[in-house]
Amino acid sequence: MKVKEGDYVVIWIDPKRVYLTKVTQKGKFSSDKGAIDLGNLIGLEYGSEITLSTGNKAYLLHPTPLDAYNGLRRPSQVLYPKDIAYMLYVSGIKPGDTVVEAGTGSGFLTIALAYFLGEKGRVITYDIRQDMQEIAKKNVSILNLSDRITFKLKDIREGIEEKDVDAVFLDMPDPWNAINSVYEALKPSGSIVIFVPTVNQIEKTVLKLREFNFVDVHAEELITREYQVKENATRPKNIGVVHTGYIIRGRKSIKVG
Amino acid sequence: MKVKEGDYVVIWIDPKRVYLTKVTQKGKFSSDKGAIDLGNLIGLEYGSEITLSTGNKAYLLHPTPLDAYNGLRRPSQVLYPKDIAYMLYVSGIKPGDTVVEAGTGSGFLTIALAYFLGEKGRVITYDIRQDMQEIAKKNVSILNLSDRITFKLKDIREGIEEKDVDAVFLDMPDPWNAINSVYEALKPSGSIVIFVPTVNQIEKTVLKLREFNFVDVHAEELITREYQVKENATRPKNIGVVHTGYIIRGRKSIKVG
Amino acid sequence: MKVKEGDYVVIWIDPKRVYLTKVTQKGKFSSDKGAIDLGNLIGLEYGSEITLSTGNKAYLLHPTPLDAYNGLRRPSQVLYPKDIAYMLYVSGIKPGDTVVEAGTGSGFLTIALAYFLGEKGRVITYDIRQDMQEIAKKNVSILNLSDRITFKLKDIREGIEEKDVDAVFLDMPDPWNAINSVYEALKPSGSIVIFVPTVNQIEKTVLKLREFNFVDVHAEELITREYQVKENATRPKNIGVVHTGYIIRGRKSIKVG
Amino acid sequence: MKVKEGDYVVIWIDPKRVYLTKVTQKGKFSSDKGAIDLGNLIGLEYGSEITLSTGNKAYLLHPTPLDAYNGLRRPSQVLYPKDIAYMLYVSGIKPGDTVVEAGTGSGFLTIALAYFLGEKGRVITYDIRQDMQEIAKKNVSILNLSDRITFKLKDIREGIEEKDVDAVFLDMPDPWNAINSVYEALKPSGSIVIFVPTVNQIEKTVLKLREFNFVDVHAEELITREYQVKENATRPKNIGVVHTGYIIRGRKSIKVG
Repeated sequence: MKVKEGDYVVIWIDPKRVYLTKVTQKGKFSSDKGAIDLGNLIGLEYGSEITLSTGNKAYLLHPTPLDAYNGLRRPSQVLYPKDIAYMLYVSGIKPGDTVVEAGTGSGFLTIALAYFLGEKGRVITYDIRQDMQEIAKKNVSILNLSDRITFKLKDIREGIEEKDVDAVFLDMPDPWNAINSVYEALKPSGSIVIFVPTVNQIEKTVLKLREFNFVDVHAEELITREYQVKENATRPKNIGVVHTGYIIRGRKSIKVG
Repeated sequence: MKVKEGDYVVIWIDPKRVYLTKVTQKGKFSSDKGAIDLGNLIGLEYGSEITLSTGNKAYLLHPTPLDAYNGLRRPSQVLYPKDIAYMLYVSGIKPGDTVVEAGTGSGFLTIALAYFLGEKGRVITYDIRQDMQEIAKKNVSILNLSDRITFKLKDIREGIEEKDVDAVFLDMPDPWNAINSVYEALKPSGSIVIFVPTVNQIEKTVLKLREFNFVDVHAEELITREYQVKENATRPKNIGVVHTGYIIRGRKSIKVG
Repeated sequence: MKVKEGDYVVIWIDPKRVYLTKVTQKGKFSSDKGAIDLGNLIGLEYGSEITLSTGNKAYLLHPTPLDAYNGLRRPSQVLYPKDIAYMLYVSGIKPGDTVVEAGTGSGFLTIALAYFLGEKGRVITYDIRQDMQEIAKKNVSILNLSDRITFKLKDIREGIEEKDVDAVFLDMPDPWNAINSVYEALKPSGSIVIFVPTVNQIEKTVLKLREFNFVDVHAEELITREYQVKENATRPKNIGVVHTGYIIRGRKSIKVG
Repeated sequence: MKVKEGDYVVIWIDPKRVYLTKVTQKGKFSSDKGAIDLGNLIGLEYGSEITLSTGNKAYLLHPTPLDAYNGLRRPSQVLYPKDIAYMLYVSGIKPGDTVVEAGTGSGFLTIALAYFLGEKGRVITYDIRQDMQEIAKKNVSILNLSDRITFKLKDIREGIEEKDVDAVFLDMPDPWNAINSVYEALKPSGSIVIFVPTVNQIEKTVLKLREFNFVDVHAEELITREYQVKENATRPKNIGVVHTGYIIRGRKSIKVG
């Protein structure tokens, strides 16, 4: 696949220098490691090694949700890739599904959801802050996902307009106040997946989920470590993120008859 | 959505009792917590609470890849959900993509790949053990994913027949011996994602990836803890899995001109 | 140093077979890996390799608190070595100090305290359960530490009889109810060190410590993993303890004038 | 206990501001949070709250090895408290013992050893770098531990002059090259405890220990997380140390007859 004018491409220099840039005929990319005329990238194969003005090498990569995480603006704290990955997987969603999310935040979970749900998937994302949604709108457009996403400036605690959705994702301070809305919107057997940063929130949320007849309820934490590989001297990196938050999930059950 | 005859359903009793069962008119499900005539489930809504012969409650859930993990036979050691989730996400694959995998093992990564790639996705899975592939074939059929999967009884170290695939996933003892095959098969900018259980394997694999001009190479570990939630007494569970393995990933780069 | 009649020795066969046994002229040691007449051990050097009746090798080791942990009866849940080690270190206690502990439990922290405080050290240990203290008394006698320890069958929440003690260690369900007693008993600048298994207990305890003008207050958790070493296949063990509890510490401050 | 002229005291302002300062009649302590005339501290009780020039509160604490860790100069990378604590505990050393250590580094393990071994304990510490030993000598003097410590400017790989020592502690790049020296110096049943930062070093060291008939050999890792306690919002801190190194231990066995 070749780079076309108008594409967003990843210019990958090293793990700390990952840039998402729009390729234009006259644009110029520059970084502390060197610059390049963006017009020169047009027609190159994705994956190509390029040489910056300084002689440093860089690589043209096709953007993924993980690149969005590394390369886009993050005005608010965002979900980490390890957490997003697990939230997607445990939710049981699949291409073509319809999901609801709140809050939108900077849109990183929104991006991941829309990407993995595919062209026929739909993400309806609620937030009460307009400024955040504007940033999120821009972020999702970079990966060409806008068509699959509906932004709603509404408080999810007051209700979800959609019905029979396949899954609901919450990343908000008081998810227990949205469980009622979620129960109404979710199809039976569908998943709720929630991210919270404190242990107190785990407790309140899980107790509320049990009250609402969610089953298969779990609260889990993922800790990640990156390894630094050198011949004969391989070990985890010394400093890193030791905590992001907890992932809670459950599935809606219904009484029969 | 209602249960139909011939469906595989999850009968969820508690976190340690998750069963994937085929619903037949005359079949009978039984467990140490009680039994039920499967014919009675036909026509029930997924998500329904049911009552077993003992009076215990159970829940009818629609199967996901995670249910497959919990409910299917695992003759070999299989990838854990946390690792599968991360491998999928970081690979950057999306609905409709074509991927190669080796080895097939019990088919749990195969299931996850086929599920998330959707109807138009394709998984080609290599293994050198016929007995394992037979089990894997049965496992994938339960989630109705057989159409998307091609099983090959071949040694991936000797070459991959497909070209320009979107990603390659390896779970095998000596992935460094397959890097050459993978480089040939992968499209530029495409991802290789590898799982290995020992640190020695990290080192050998990463050194080989660097040799083959893979970029954006990372080796990471995910540790997970489940929390036990009781009012005023919330804490992680005491005993659990402290180690599964390491996830290595990289993207193919090419030299231009 | 040689084994004498009446010594407690460690017979170490493998990591899962660590026995603390009293050597008598006519005694016999037996295990699923083989037996030996204990009289034969008298006069052997500690550290010696011995041969059991089966031909299996075993090793005579001089007992340490860690051997007590591995080799003694544990009717109640006991503190893990990693936690005991850290509690001792952060407390700032040194040989010859006097410390108070509650509850006694099976006496494993008692053993470690008495051992590291040396001959002139004193441990006063409170518990409200007589049955537990009887077991603890037996356990501490095996390492010859009884002289340094005073057992009190009292509720520490109702007061500590000692004054100006160097440190206080708590392993009890509601440590917040003992903070007043501890503040009265502790010398200024002295440490309180507390172990609790749940996060709710962290919160209650730390808030209470702050109220009582403890400073340098920290709540920490230690996670440990053991590695399995094989040439070219080194990795953490798969299954293990993922949670024991949290260590809280602080130091008593006083207002002047 | 009261502060005397010439004492080293800890001035504790907050977790990031821990100062070890010598109290002199005319000295002055200053920090970004305020200053105080040190002469004013003489005669105050340890544990006292004091008021800095800015009105900020601070606390006079009696120094422990942990304060040394937080308050002294660290020109080289030093062992972390969690690791030192565990190394001490598992070694089985007790007050009055004699131990050998290499390398000295900045002297933080030396401090902990000398402190916990008490007045009759002896630490012989080897290093090949004179500049480091000079810093270590100064560091140990601050806790008044110099009398218990002998500094040797020698390469431990070429032999240990002491015999029948109770334990040996190694923190050096190639511990496997010192195992022979250690075996000669250690009393039977005595412990070797080793710290290494990479997994490759675990493997080499453990294989060498097995070769030399060390038994009860273990390689472990400790991961620590500090919790941030707020009412209704308790959680681990976000960023921290995710890796320091691995602790390897074993005990010398001997063949009889």
